[in-house]
Amino acid sequence: MRIVYYLPGPMSRGPLGPEELVRRGAYLTQAAFQSTELEVRESDVGPSSIESSAEEYLSIPATLEAAPRLEAEGFDAMIIGCFGDPGLAPTRELVGIPVIGPGQASALAAAQVGQRFAIITVVDEVVPAIRRQMRSYGLEGLVSDIRAVDVPVLELRERADEVLGTLELEAHAALQTGADTLILGCMTMGFLDVARALQDRIGVPVINPVLASLKAAESAISIGLCSSRQAYPRPRKTIDSLVS
Amino acid sequence: MRIVYYLPGPMSRGPLGPEELVRRGAYLTQAAFQSTELEVRESDVGPSSIESSAEEYLSIPATLEAAPRLEAEGFDAMIIGCFGDPGLAPTRELVGIPVIGPGQASALAAAQVGQRFAIITVVDEVVPAIRRQMRSYGLEGLVSDIRAVDVPVLELRERADEVLGTLELEAHAALQTGADTLILGCMTMGFLDVARALQDRIGVPVINPVLASLKAAESAISIGLCSSRQAYPRPRKTIDSLVS
Amino acid sequence: MRIVYYLPGPMSRGPLGPEELVRRGAYLTQAAFQSTELEVRESDVGPSSIESSAEEYLSIPATLEAAPRLEAEGFDAMIIGCFGDPGLAPTRELVGIPVIGPGQASALAAAQVGQRFAIITVVDEVVPAIRRQMRSYGLEGLVSDIRAVDVPVLELRERADEVLGTLELEAHAALQTGADTLILGCMTMGFLDVARALQDRIGVPVINPVLASLKAAESAISIGLCSSRQAYPRPRKTIDSLVS
Amino acid sequence: MRIVYYLPGPMSRGPLGPEELVRRGAYLTQAAFQSTELEVRESDVGPSSIESSAEEYLSIPATLEAAPRLEAEGFDAMIIGCFGDPGLAPTRELVGIPVIGPGQASALAAAQVGQRFAIITVVDEVVPAIRRQMRSYGLEGLVSDIRAVDVPVLELRERADEVLGTLELEAHAALQTGADTLILGCMTMGFLDVARALQDRIGVPVINPVLASLKAAESAISIGLCSSRQAYPRPRKTIDSLVS
Amino acid sequence: MRIVYYLPGPMSRGPLGPEELVRRGAYLTQAAFQSTELEVRESDVGPSSIESSAEEYLSIPATLEAAPRLEAEGFDAMIIGCFGDPGLAPTRELVGIPVIGPGQASALAAAQVGQRFAIITVVDEVVPAIRRQMRSYGLEGLVSDIRAVDVPVLELRERADEVLGTLELEAHAALQTGADTLILGCMTMGFLDVARALQDRIGVPVINPVLASLKAAESAISIGLCSSRQAYPRPRKTIDSLVS
Amino acid sequence: MRIVYYLPGPMSRGPLGPEELVRRGAYLTQAAFQSTELEVRESDVGPSSIESSAEEYLSIPATLEAAPRLEAEGFDAMIIGCFGDPGLAPTRELVGIPVIGPGQASALAAAQVGQRFAIITVVDEVVPAIRRQMRSYGLEGLVSDIRAVDVPVLELRERADEVLGTLELEAHAALQTGADTLILGCMTMGFLDVARALQDRIGVPVINPVLASLKAAESAISIGLCSSRQAYPRPRKTIDSLVS
Repeated sequence: MRIVYYLPGPMSRGPLGPEELVRRGAYLTQAAFQSTELEVRESDVGPSSIESSAEEYLSIPATLEAAPRLEAEGFDAMIIGCFGDPGLAPTRELVGIPVIGPGQASALAAAQVGQRFAIITVVDEVVPAIRRQMRSYGLEGLVSDIRAVDVPVLELRERADEVLGTLELEAHAALQTGADTLILGCMTMGFLDVARALQDRIGVPVINPVLASLKAAESAISIGLCSSRQAYPRPRKTIDSLVS
Repeated sequence: MRIVYYLPGPMSRGPLGPEELVRRGAYLTQAAFQSTELEVRESDVGPSSIESSAEEYLSIPATLEAAPRLEAEGFDAMIIGCFGDPGLAPTRELVGIPVIGPGQASALAAAQVGQRFAIITVVDEVVPAIRRQMRSYGLEGLVSDIRAVDVPVLELRERADEVLGTLELEAHAALQTGADTLILGCMTMGFLDVARALQDRIGVPVINPVLASLKAAESAISIGLCSSRQAYPRPRKTIDSLVS
Repeated sequence: MRIVYYLPGPMSRGPLGPEELVRRGAYLTQAAFQSTELEVRESDVGPSSIESSAEEYLSIPATLEAAPRLEAEGFDAMIIGCFGDPGLAPTRELVGIPVIGPGQASALAAAQVGQRFAIITVVDEVVPAIRRQMRSYGLEGLVSDIRAVDVPVLELRERADEVLGTLELEAHAALQTGADTLILGCMTMGFLDVARALQDRIGVPVINPVLASLKAAESAISIGLCSSRQAYPRPRKTIDSLVS
Repeated sequence: MRIVYYLPGPMSRGPLGPEELVRRGAYLTQAAFQSTELEVRESDVGPSSIESSAEEYLSIPATLEAAPRLEAEGFDAMIIGCFGDPGLAPTRELVGIPVIGPGQASALAAAQVGQRFAIITVVDEVVPAIRRQMRSYGLEGLVSDIRAVDVPVLELRERADEVLGTLELEAHAALQTGADTLILGCMTMGFLDVARALQDRIGVPVINPVLASLKAAESAISIGLCSSRQAYPRPRKTIDSLVS
Repeated sequence: MRIVYYLPGPMSRGPLGPEELVRRGAYLTQAAFQSTELEVRESDVGPSSIESSAEEYLSIPATLEAAPRLEAEGFDAMIIGCFGDPGLAPTRELVGIPVIGPGQASALAAAQVGQRFAIITVVDEVVPAIRRQMRSYGLEGLVSDIRAVDVPVLELRERADEVLGTLELEAHAALQTGADTLILGCMTMGFLDVARALQDRIGVPVINPVLASLKAAESAISIGLCSSRQAYPRPRKTIDSLVS
Repeated sequence: MRIVYYLPGPMSRGPLGPEELVRRGAYLTQAAFQSTELEVRESDVGPSSIESSAEEYLSIPATLEAAPRLEAEGFDAMIIGCFGDPGLAPTRELVGIPVIGPGQASALAAAQVGQRFAIITVVDEVVPAIRRQMRSYGLEGLVSDIRAVDVPVLELRERADEVLGTLELEAHAALQTGADTLILGCMTMGFLDVARALQDRIGVPVINPVLASLKAAESAISIGLCSSRQAYPRPRKTIDSLVS
């Protein structure tokens, strides 16, 4: 099975550089089942990181254009590489392969191992967007809290040690308010590979959205599940903007 | 007060032509309070009509680019001219004036006059998107049903008589399943000006999203309300895609 | 359009005196659209202020008797001048004009500009009643908190400075527990005209129920919306108590 | 223990006459535990039957005046004799004895024996009021349906045979839409004593609100439970309207 | 009426000894209505106390075997003597008499006297189980908090004084987070007879699950209510494990 | 990774015989990832099929005894082979490996590909139990309907052709009432291998609980997720019944 991890922005031209794409591909490949072939792709256009609803939405047209191409290339599933799941619904309308949103996959993974989860994300600015996201999935009732470490995405790697410490503090606060499971609410945080360390420190499951979305993709392919056409119907008329 | 009704697609280049923009402006002006100055603007790019999530999302970047410009031009509020409220959240992040989504404004207007409402929209394909939309506003509990007349947006005007008949049938079905109030789930349907006729025929309030959004805009301006920055924070970093 | 702001108690005979009615009329008129003619009326009987469910309910029969008379006088809408919306549902049953409850109108206005709101009211004793009220509208899921400044209604004016300070403290506490928008949960508080000052101090929208209900009334009249007869049916038999 | 069943209207002066009060007292006494002393009282004023929200609310002031007197007379609990529970909250504020609302007691009794209940009431006009009522108790999620037999309260007795037949039809319809338990949504229906017959015919529990409220009152007294003062606080200031 | 209070474990062989059964029988009898004949029975097998989901579930088969026998003995209702209501649903499937779960009965009693309740139980380990339990009854929306005094069941009696003090602290914390009514979440706590004392100290109703379940049983018998066969159907085929 | 599929009853001694265990093992192995080693085990005791809550609960003690043994044998995850997830919570308390309930895993898989799902199970008698189950997971809001084909578990195989036809009818009925995704609510139905055929016929995803639970187990192991100890705490005291 071939899975594409699609970055909705030109990460390789940002501060993390093209080597980060390679590193992410390796990380995913190592976490994948043997039969999985994994490729990381990035958009040529769009924001260098996604830290607001505005940036999320700006990234979507490129994703919508890319998705049918990636499907035509033979990929069996597509992961949208941002916790906010930008463009999840419309992308599902346009292709016949499973499209995975890490935010949704993480929430469902958390619901598998616990009964009330908190999400810890990067900056306060995305907290209300994550609430809207969970509401739109009908899962707000399982969310005990949404918190932030207040470190911008592009500084996460260089401040990795600090991040783990802050995560631990926020995690304890989240447990106090009723969480039994935690989700890291950012893909760059996921690729920092701190979820396991955090899990060991605080003693409850910590969902890494990178891994949750990879497993959701592998599972869907493996058992032949795809988006419901009753929930994500094919558009009836040709979409001009995608024709060019 | 100056309100811009922003069409998220180049309607004047479509089958309805530039005269439809003029007509819509006149319709809005007639419905507006005396102190309201209303202008209709359209996007240069984007889909000619919005009948899928994909088209909704494709229209958003142009809206995000236009919004700060329109604010700079001195408009006091902006209505996004599509029932699906495409880009409502990110547009609110980018400007300091109220941004009104007709779908949201209609749902809140319905909640003012009834306790359970049904939405009747154009085509079946947008029904699941409207459910997601109502969920994301935390209002799914007030929705009794979402139905469609199965007439594409661009055929609504020429099939106007048929549409009213079908609306009446769907309206009765919606009352059967518990609705006490109806919402027309499409702006072009709203501009057909059939809401009042339907209301007279079936005897319950029928919300016209055109009028609901106009009144929401006028009200917000009039009493100095704007989007909460805790719900729609200003992006922390410069948004590249908007800079060019 | 003619709107009556109906006080469900004989305020002019209380400590605030008849000049307060005049002042309120002027405040409303100033906030109204140009085409709006506004009149303040009060009940001859009933409690001098409403600070308990008991007082709320005691005020209702006079409202029910007044409403058809006010409709016959030619008013196009009626605002019930108490945040608890006493008698909202039965009054809607009895008249064919829109009847606006400030509590409901404020909650819907808050839902327009934010996604989770807190209500700050006068005394602790009305907090549980406000929860019942929001539940009965199906909006409890949007409420993050209900708090009180612990100042009785009739002392609000003389302790106005203190009130703003306490409001600010309570507002910060409400933001801490997840509110992104605030509502002042008392009409006398609304007429103190502190909402704007509070909004400036804490940086999120503060809904003034006086203005929210005024705009809801003007909007409903302007677009021809009235209470759904499926939600508020006309009583089938003559209501004896109203006959005399 | 002494329980007063309080009729919120002058039933004895209506078509059912004073003998209906006697009959109801006997019915209740027969259903009561041995230690229970039961008295039926009626209001001197108010509607002869309650078949609209308006009539419900008009009956409340008399109830609020009566309640403290009945408490002073030594009653240990008070049942408000109308399924709509008119004045339940404010009456609880004013007295220190348990106040039982038959609608609430029936919903809780239904939740004891099933997991989703339907309510079958008299006329369509009260259906939306019952929905508001269940919402205000936070129990709307357990309600599968609210239906009506379309027989006015004051005709129930003379059309008793017809009523049972119609109830059976409505009951089957309610089972079809997911109810596992039924509630008769009217006290006069309850005193018709058809609940048991209906239960035998359709094979699921049918809650008689007369009996549900009686048992709720006896239970509360027996174990020393009374209304929470955090939910129904004593009014802080003297209530003028009750002073006279 | 004959009610059996069924202990789902061999309490008499544990540290509390057979005298505790006698004491509990006396306590229940004293709280019962005059016409009630009460018997305490215990399971021969099963856990000596229930402080985890595992112990709850291990106790169930003995309950399922006992229930039809107790029904055959002529009992009119059965109370399952554990707050977690172990085996409530399946026991209801197997017998034609009312089966009462103290957790469910307490939640419904709390909903009668307040609008948001907190549960205070013994040890932290059962808190998540109680949340699942309230969710499965559709009542999670009424729960403000679930807390624990951190005293194991079998130490409750000897540490009774300490328990009351800790209960008071936890009760105050629960009021802070919005509870207006409290439930003691453990039957051994209920039999300590501290509910009334706690209620006096903190001024809100404290539901004793022992008494709540007793009254629920007496009420159901008294008015002829039994489990809905649509919610708890009789198994279609013979249950082998119960045959032997 | 080694996964045990645990049958909570002695299937090999029932009409399906030991060859059915072999067949199921083969079916699972074929659907598993290459690195997965799968073993089917069955309980020595318990019901031959589970078609009531009573049978579900009777099967649990054997599962609780087996789980620690299976963990000690080195299995990395355990699937409880019944859609009702009997003993899911207590089993999770007792072991440190992931325990998968097919009902829960199927609901979460459905939430991944659609937004409202219906469950089609075997007999009407288990429908209310499935509602309780979904409620206890906090997922009732995503369920549009629960239906049954009215074929007992043990007749499913011999009546396989008929079953597919009935499933198709029920599936269409479920789509009518708003489902966009279907779940087969029985493991024996899952092993019939009709999900794919049904999916092809009706055009929406049909979740096979056998495959959903297998993928949930593989995913959890693969990314190191286990049950939250805050949701499923280890029992504090030794569980006697498990000691022997």
